[in-house]
Amino acid sequence: MKLATFLRPDGTTRAGRIEGDDVVLLPAAGVQQLLGNDDWPRIAAGEGEHVPLADTVHARLVDAPSKVFCIGRNYLAHVREAGPDAELPAYPEIFVKFAESLTGAYDDIPLPAGSGHTRLGEALAAAAAAPTGSMPVASDFVDWEAELVLVIGSAVRRASLTEAEAAIAGFTVGNDVTVRDWQFHTPLWTQGKAWEAMSPIGPVLVTADEIGVRPDLRIRCLIDDEVMQDSRTSDMVFDPVELVAYISRFVTLRPGDLIFTGTPSGVGVTRKPQVYLRPGQVLRTEIEGIGASVNTLVAEDLRSFAGDREPAAQPAG
Amino acid sequence: MKLATFLRPDGTTRAGRIEGDDVVLLPAAGVQQLLGNDDWPRIAAGEGEHVPLADTVHARLVDAPSKVFCIGRNYLAHVREAGPDAELPAYPEIFVKFAESLTGAYDDIPLPAGSGHTRLGEALAAAAAAPTGSMPVASDFVDWEAELVLVIGSAVRRASLTEAEAAIAGFTVGNDVTVRDWQFHTPLWTQGKAWEAMSPIGPVLVTADEIGVRPDLRIRCLIDDEVMQDSRTSDMVFDPVELVAYISRFVTLRPGDLIFTGTPSGVGVTRKPQVYLRPGQVLRTEIEGIGASVNTLVAEDLRSFAGDREPAAQPAG
Repeated sequence: MKLATFLRPDGTTRAGRIEGDDVVLLPAAGVQQLLGNDDWPRIAAGEGEHVPLADTVHARLVDAPSKVFCIGRNYLAHVREAGPDAELPAYPEIFVKFAESLTGAYDDIPLPAGSGHTRLGEALAAAAAAPTGSMPVASDFVDWEAELVLVIGSAVRRASLTEAEAAIAGFTVGNDVTVRDWQFHTPLWTQGKAWEAMSPIGPVLVTADEIGVRPDLRIRCLIDDEVMQDSRTSDMVFDPVELVAYISRFVTLRPGDLIFTGTPSGVGVTRKPQVYLRPGQVLRTEIEGIGASVNTLVAEDLRSFAGDREPAAQPAG
Repeated sequence: MKLATFLRPDGTTRAGRIEGDDVVLLPAAGVQQLLGNDDWPRIAAGEGEHVPLADTVHARLVDAPSKVFCIGRNYLAHVREAGPDAELPAYPEIFVKFAESLTGAYDDIPLPAGSGHTRLGEALAAAAAAPTGSMPVASDFVDWEAELVLVIGSAVRRASLTEAEAAIAGFTVGNDVTVRDWQFHTPLWTQGKAWEAMSPIGPVLVTADEIGVRPDLRIRCLIDDEVMQDSRTSDMVFDPVELVAYISRFVTLRPGDLIFTGTPSGVGVTRKPQVYLRPGQVLRTEIEGIGASVNTLVAEDLRSFAGDREPAAQPAG
C-alpha cells in the first residue's frame, strides 16, 4: 500500500491510500495517527471516500514524530569516499533531527545564505572567532543526503530481529539536508543536522508488505536535473531491521518515529571542488518504487533575526 | 517561585506553586502545560486551592518535552579531568535525550545489570564482536552526571542574548545518567545517553526571577551519602544564556524544552579505579536553592527481552 497525508479543502488533514489515480480517504488525521492504531493494517486497507489524486494536496507525511533518528556513514561507498582507508563503523552512528527539522515533500527549503564565505575552512575559522551566544546564522555550506527513511508502525523495545521486522510500517523518501560548517563545530554533529524545516520527507509511505523490510531499490539525488547521488539501498552497512533492533535496545520506538537510514556516496562536501546548495535550485530525492520529493531552495531573509541584525539605519530628516 | 507537577488523588496531575509548607494548585495539568500559556508568570503567581506539601506526591516535572538537549564537557574542571592538556570546546557539544529517557525525581532507576564484564574495555571488546541487531542489552557501566537543567519558558528562534534570557523559565535538577560502554560504541554518543527512564529531573522548577539566568549554585552528586561531585554552576564554559542563543540558531526552542547544561568533575569513568552505579545504591543529585532528586537504583530483570533471551529450559518429565 501507498499511504500519505493529505490537506483537505477545509484545512484539516486526512490519511489516504493511493490507488491508481484515486485517493481512498481513511479515518485518521494523517499517517502518524493511522499508525497509532494497532489495527492500522486493516484500517489502511479498508474502504472510504474516493477523491481524484490529481485534486489532492500533500501535507507532511508524518507531522510530529516523537523521535527522528539518523544514521551516519551507513553506505559502503559513502564510507569509502571519506578516504579509501576509512574503516567501516562498528555500530550504527546515531544522531537525530527533531519534528521541527522536517518539511514536506514539495515544500521550499529555506537556505540561510549570505555568509560571505566561499570556502568551508574560512567559514569555520570565522565561526571559531565569533562569540558562541551571538554566532552568525548565515551559512553557504548546505549539503544534500538522499536517504531511505524507515517509518515505525508499532511500539517496540529491545526487539529481536523478528520483532524488529514486525515493527517496520514501511519506507518513505527523505533528504538529510546538512549545514556542513555547523556540523563540524563539534564532533557531535547535532547543530548541523537538526536545522529547522530543512529536511524533506515523503510524499508517501510504501508499506513493508509491498517492498519488504530490507529493500533493494535505486536511490538518487538530483540538483536541477543533474544526478549527484545514484546508488542502491542494498549498499547499507547496517540494514533497516538491524537498526530497529539496535536502537530499540536503549529506547522505545513508537508509531510514526522515523529512522533516516544513511546516505550513499556523492554528497557535496566530498566532491572536488566541493559543491553546496544555492537558492533557486531544485533538490529532487527519489527512490524507485516509493516516489520523489521535489523541493525548491529559497534564500531566507535573515535581516529580521536579532543575532545577525545590524543597527537599523536612521530615517533621514 | 518554586513550581512543580503533582499527582492528584484522582490520578490526574496538576501544576502547583510551593509556598512554605503548602502547595497552591494552579490551573494547568503540569509545569509544561503551564509554561505553554504565554501568560504563565501571572498564572503561576495567582491564587488557588492550598494543600499541605506533606500530603502531595510529585509527578515528573515536565512530562513530554519536545526536545531535550544535553551539553558535553561544559565545566572547566570536568574538561580537565579528561587530561590536563584537554582543550576547551570551541562550541557547545550538543547531544540529546528523549522524553522517554527521563524519569521522576524520586523514581527508581532501572539498571540493565548482569553483563558479566567488570572492565569497560572488556565490555567494549565483547560488544564489538556481537552482531549489531542482536546486541546484548546488559551493561554494568552506568555512570552519573549531576546537572543544572534549564527549562524553556517561551518559544524562541535565533535569539539575541537578551531574547535568550527572556526565554528561560528557570532551572531544575537533573542527572545525565550515562551507559558508558554504549556511549563509546560510536563517536556520536546518542546510544549511551538516551536510555529509557534513566535520567531523573526535578522535583521543582525554580524560576529565573528568583535565581537568575546565570546562577552560581553549589551542585553535588552523592551515592549512598558519599560525595562524588561537588562544584559550582558558575564553572561552566558556556553559560545558560549562551546555550539558549546558540541552540536557537538552528531550531526553535519551545516551552518545556530542557537543556541539561553539563556536568562537573567527579564522574565514575574518570576515577582511578573507575566506579559505576550498582543496584541498591541511592543516587542523590542536589543543587543549592533548587532541591534534590533521590533515586534508588534497581536491577532490571532482563530475562524477558528477546535479544538477550536464552533458550528456555525444558521442564523435566
